[in-house]
Amino acid sequence: MRILYHLPLSPFSRKVRLVLAERRLAFDLRLEKVWERRPDYLELNPAGTVPTLVEDNGLAIPDSAVICEYLEEAYPDMPLLGRTLAERVETRRLVAWFDGKFATEVTRNLLGEKYIKRLASRGNPDPAAMRTGYLALRYHLDYLGWLAETRKWLAGSAISLADFTAAAHLSCLDFIGDVDWSVSPPAKEWYARMKSRPGFRGVLADRVPGLTPPVHYADLDF
Amino acid sequence: MRILYHLPLSPFSRKVRLVLAERRLAFDLRLEKVWERRPDYLELNPAGTVPTLVEDNGLAIPDSAVICEYLEEAYPDMPLLGRTLAERVETRRLVAWFDGKFATEVTRNLLGEKYIKRLASRGNPDPAAMRTGYLALRYHLDYLGWLAETRKWLAGSAISLADFTAAAHLSCLDFIGDVDWSVSPPAKEWYARMKSRPGFRGVLADRVPGLTPPVHYADLDF
Repeated sequence: MRILYHLPLSPFSRKVRLVLAERRLAFDLRLEKVWERRPDYLELNPAGTVPTLVEDNGLAIPDSAVICEYLEEAYPDMPLLGRTLAERVETRRLVAWFDGKFATEVTRNLLGEKYIKRLASRGNPDPAAMRTGYLALRYHLDYLGWLAETRKWLAGSAISLADFTAAAHLSCLDFIGDVDWSVSPPAKEWYARMKSRPGFRGVLADRVPGLTPPVHYADLDF
Repeated sequence: MRILYHLPLSPFSRKVRLVLAERRLAFDLRLEKVWERRPDYLELNPAGTVPTLVEDNGLAIPDSAVICEYLEEAYPDMPLLGRTLAERVETRRLVAWFDGKFATEVTRNLLGEKYIKRLASRGNPDPAAMRTGYLALRYHLDYLGWLAETRKWLAGSAISLADFTAAAHLSCLDFIGDVDWSVSPPAKEWYARMKSRPGFRGVLADRVPGLTPPVHYADLDF
């Protein structure tokens, strides 16, 4: 069985879990405590990050972006990047937006400060970083809502890797109770649709020691 | 003529310049002062970063990773990601390594502190960040040297996007005199080979107000 090394609140791991489930590709999850820098894991992925996917034939694929491009090429029956060149540019632009800009401005300042810092024993959350994160999240929810309002899915008329990437980040922030969905009703409506995709069941069932998600976290009609 | 919006010491812009030249795709360079947040530019690339490529048909492609994937699909006669699935995983792994890990640990701590901070009027270089950057650069040069010694090119037997990505970062650091090539003779030998690629002529001719590159910067036999 293919194996996905992951951490439950890693948005990059969640993105791959959602995509594998959407593609109906079975996988076993393995928790990888990356801060332990396990030598066998560093052989699979010298960067020491999660996720890493290991295929049945032994091929190890590190990094969520690399994994998603690999899946697109290895299992071309379900294109999640779009069909035309322009569609694929727009999907990848939004994936880069959420994994780059959103991750730096929001995820790192909120999840990073409140959870990852504690996990890595790197001290207390920085209130200034958190303020920056909350402000940026409002702006990003507005942008996401605008996309969701003007298109059927974030990158266009079909569900794509852009939706799974955005949903992966937001699901982690929702787990720690940081998403004020009242900011953008269209963003909330889009996220409710995402929650009913096949891969979300696993993500919504995640539990993490010392953290309790808000009641609405696993609720499909939140 | 296709247009590339860029900044001369942006490694991400340089990567695309090297790749376009390698593919013999003609382009005009336009300097984009991203800190001015020009509205017309934000229409092309809402993230406001460089590079952005605009094709003759008007298609705007932001973000170096998105551009390089686009070029691979739009001009498939010269695959720079490799041919087999495993080759493409290894190339993309190394691209993610240099654009992610190397960029965070080295480029940001050296070029970011010494040059980008001044450009953005964000104060003086932080000596602790620079120390971290120099230490990480030695480690990365060792890794690069090991790759260059055990393979013909960084990702395998053919030149690939991994080589252009690494060379783009190193050429920016070499411009500010921060690369001690004596750390790794195989890395130096690989970089000398990269310098003779078609796209490097433009990169080696770059000049930036207030900065003079070391004499060896543009020297092909440094």
